[in-house]
Amino acid sequence: MTDNNALPMSKRDLLAMIGKTAGASAMYMAMSSFGQAQASNFKGPIKLDGDAKGATVLILGAGVAGMTAALELSKAGYKVQVLEYNDRVGGRSWTLKGGDTFTELGGAKQLCQFSAGNYINPGPWRIPWHHHGLIHYCHELGVALEPFMQVNYNAYVHSTTAFGGKPQRYRHIQADFYGYVGELLSKAVNTSALSDTVTKEDGELLLEALRGWGGLDKNMRYVKGQTSSNRRGWDKEPGGGLSAEPIPSDPLTLETLLQSKLWRSIGGNLTWDHEFTIFQPVGGMEQVAKGFERAVGHLVKLNSKVTAIQQDAKGVTVSYVDTKSGAKAQAKADYCICTIPLPILAQIDMNVGPDLAAAIRAVPYSTSVKVGLEFKRRFWEQDDKIYGGITSTDLPISQISYPSSNYGAKGPGVLLGAYTGGSTGFELTALPPAERVARALEWGSQIHPQYKEEFMNGVSVGWHRVPWVLGCFGQWSEEARAQHYKNLCQRDGRIMLAGEHASYYGGWQEGGITSAIDAITRLHQHVLAS
Amino acid sequence: MTDNNALPMSKRDLLAMIGKTAGASAMYMAMSSFGQAQASNFKGPIKLDGDAKGATVLILGAGVAGMTAALELSKAGYKVQVLEYNDRVGGRSWTLKGGDTFTELGGAKQLCQFSAGNYINPGPWRIPWHHHGLIHYCHELGVALEPFMQVNYNAYVHSTTAFGGKPQRYRHIQADFYGYVGELLSKAVNTSALSDTVTKEDGELLLEALRGWGGLDKNMRYVKGQTSSNRRGWDKEPGGGLSAEPIPSDPLTLETLLQSKLWRSIGGNLTWDHEFTIFQPVGGMEQVAKGFERAVGHLVKLNSKVTAIQQDAKGVTVSYVDTKSGAKAQAKADYCICTIPLPILAQIDMNVGPDLAAAIRAVPYSTSVKVGLEFKRRFWEQDDKIYGGITSTDLPISQISYPSSNYGAKGPGVLLGAYTGGSTGFELTALPPAERVARALEWGSQIHPQYKEEFMNGVSVGWHRVPWVLGCFGQWSEEARAQHYKNLCQRDGRIMLAGEHASYYGGWQEGGITSAIDAITRLHQHVLAS
Repeated sequence: MTDNNALPMSKRDLLAMIGKTAGASAMYMAMSSFGQAQASNFKGPIKLDGDAKGATVLILGAGVAGMTAALELSKAGYKVQVLEYNDRVGGRSWTLKGGDTFTELGGAKQLCQFSAGNYINPGPWRIPWHHHGLIHYCHELGVALEPFMQVNYNAYVHSTTAFGGKPQRYRHIQADFYGYVGELLSKAVNTSALSDTVTKEDGELLLEALRGWGGLDKNMRYVKGQTSSNRRGWDKEPGGGLSAEPIPSDPLTLETLLQSKLWRSIGGNLTWDHEFTIFQPVGGMEQVAKGFERAVGHLVKLNSKVTAIQQDAKGVTVSYVDTKSGAKAQAKADYCICTIPLPILAQIDMNVGPDLAAAIRAVPYSTSVKVGLEFKRRFWEQDDKIYGGITSTDLPISQISYPSSNYGAKGPGVLLGAYTGGSTGFELTALPPAERVARALEWGSQIHPQYKEEFMNGVSVGWHRVPWVLGCFGQWSEEARAQHYKNLCQRDGRIMLAGEHASYYGGWQEGGITSAIDAITRLHQHVLAS
Repeated sequence: MTDNNALPMSKRDLLAMIGKTAGASAMYMAMSSFGQAQASNFKGPIKLDGDAKGATVLILGAGVAGMTAALELSKAGYKVQVLEYNDRVGGRSWTLKGGDTFTELGGAKQLCQFSAGNYINPGPWRIPWHHHGLIHYCHELGVALEPFMQVNYNAYVHSTTAFGGKPQRYRHIQADFYGYVGELLSKAVNTSALSDTVTKEDGELLLEALRGWGGLDKNMRYVKGQTSSNRRGWDKEPGGGLSAEPIPSDPLTLETLLQSKLWRSIGGNLTWDHEFTIFQPVGGMEQVAKGFERAVGHLVKLNSKVTAIQQDAKGVTVSYVDTKSGAKAQAKADYCICTIPLPILAQIDMNVGPDLAAAIRAVPYSTSVKVGLEFKRRFWEQDDKIYGGITSTDLPISQISYPSSNYGAKGPGVLLGAYTGGSTGFELTALPPAERVARALEWGSQIHPQYKEEFMNGVSVGWHRVPWVLGCFGQWSEEARAQHYKNLCQRDGRIMLAGEHASYYGGWQEGGITSAIDAITRLHQHVLAS
């Protein structure tokens, strides 16, 4: 449950250290990884055997957790109704594209002006291969997936304090880091410094491994030449015909490499959440919502703002307001699956026991901010030869993610110009949306000078101003999880919670899906036993 | 110009060692990488300024080299004709799909029986991001590209002599290798074994880097726990709700890892040719040919078997046979760009100087074999959770490549069941096509036991039996290149050669394209000066 910044220290030490050395954005990125780094325990489609006895279930929230519950419960014979605050299903599985509007807390309303086919996903944007539940539903519901380009060797790694702020290519940093690691460990093996740990026979194997992996020369050194340039790239790239012979490039020195600290951008791509193969839905994450909508959209009542959740011996009564008409209404059912995000739920009148009530208040939500920027052309492809992937930086934007679709398209292109959080997230969220866009543009232009000439328009979502969540996703501390997690997941009378907050991977749709499956499985056992 | 098997020894030593330790297929894979590991020197669309004076050019071969020459020369005002042996353009940029037939040398004719949408590319199948020329033409000619999944952490690495022949997950081997490398190097730094090489300050940075990158614990050890499982994966994957807590997995021991030699499968993916982002055309490599065909297909005369190429002071005369009618014919032009593969060209009557004649005979061609297998379902996705990517093995099939498209499709699926060469390539090519398929099925079933139950049909191309190449691609030795390469590329009177064989990346389309651009640029300079 760590990423590239995660070190073998206490979590607090770790975060303090990252905060000191890499800025608030890096701290956020490290924090957001706690609790969201694992794979699903989804074991295949569930089957709720046995008679539901005509039981009714009211589901609150039509995000992926609520829609999963609606789909599986209705299949099992339950009578299901879903109440949803927004005028669309999907919740945070959301895509902003041209013509969409979004009004945030405080009243600022943005009209997304992207050209046809361009979009950003303000919420979840990636689907690792091991998110078995989500991938199952994508396949079942006809949601086409395409690879998300998590790693691109030709993208940049950037630090304001290294190389005079000039961005470096990922391949240079990775190849040189691996090369020197290989060279140094070879030296230690060859000088018998590890002879108490590695047998002579294993040492020979290790040398062979390091030589091939690190791109070392015949003397086990990482030096300028064909072997190292076959990792990091060439000064003059080869070609065909005469004068086509390549010219190798100069590796960085070990000192320059280490002191740049740019090696911090490598490890995160080796973690469970970021392993290849990793997907995105073709056309944006809203396609997941549209898939569920095709299956169970008829069960959803949109524009329904829940104001109270009351249970008694006979059932659950949910009071809500029709946000279009202002009319007040009630819905009743035998049971309630509540997927409302905790910062909202904590404000709703609800008669549950003290354990669940305390758990609902125990989980702070992340301050994530995303900024989408549209440019006149895909200069990152045309000029920089970056096709998808992510540039990482210690600037407050934290990263720039290039689109993993429509490679080579000639019209305007949209990139994710910021995905940040922590204190930077708060600072940006406090600004008007246009100012967030302006700052992302200013910061990003330090990496891509083409920004200012090519800029067309932008859109920004600061999640603490999203009225129906008030934050991006639940961030469990280890202490809070030990004290409150099981209480949050336990059935409280006729009410059960589900959502990414009720899972071991906050911030991922797979958490919502597996928590919903776990909750309805237990609910069904209860119904059968009643 | 090496891959994961390339070691800092002489090339001959290296190949001998690989042959001894890893079998003929591994030797082939290493050999085929010499000379094909670099990027393009394509600098953007060429512009041949100046009056071509109505000069005529005859181009032999409608592969990507010939079609590039046809496209750019006709744009520059030359009168161009292309003669092509096959009944289609594209040459080795070729896709086999359902309904296609292929007759190999010896007369065996295969009818490909794949279901609609399934295919294999018998020749080139990947387009690295730095193949700037090919990517330029794909964009210009409307050939859509999608990511090729070169690396999949959940694919297998397999050795018949390790783990009782049971395939291992790529992520286990990579994570454990990186973890132990990090632990061992940390130990060497901490015991001052490297104090003459690494300063104290840099040593501290190195330790920080190794800790994060290797997934080490607080004692700088790679041990079972959340940190290592966040790299290699979990024994029990986490989920949502109750009982969702993950259980870490056990790393291999260092001894088991090293002695398995499975680390050999990691390094190759770090090389220039295999870096992310790497593409394939949507719908198969033939889409590249179709793109060129839309632009200059009207200049191509198909079914034309060249029998003689003669030049004199006035021009070039090419004799050819219409393979449909048997009619003999001649074509004349001021100049000839000849892209015919060298094993064929060496058999054609041609009056060129001794240097070029010797060069044409200096380059052996690879013995590559590919086998495509169709199965009733995508069991590798459904059962093994492998979405795209490559399983490597020391079996004669060398690798299994899973389709990088239509992820999650429910119907029959086609995978590349063998891509091998060297002596294994010869052995397989000597067999009837059906026997090659049967053997690939037998070998592959050691990795995927589902093979036999799910098999539908297969197709196989042994390139030494492809009548119009007699091999897959040119394999320059360093000695041959020093002696003959420039002679091969130099203009010989009115004749210039182009093709992947006239480049520094044999076996890649980018070699054909850049060699064509180099050749026609020099030809144009000659015409302007004439």
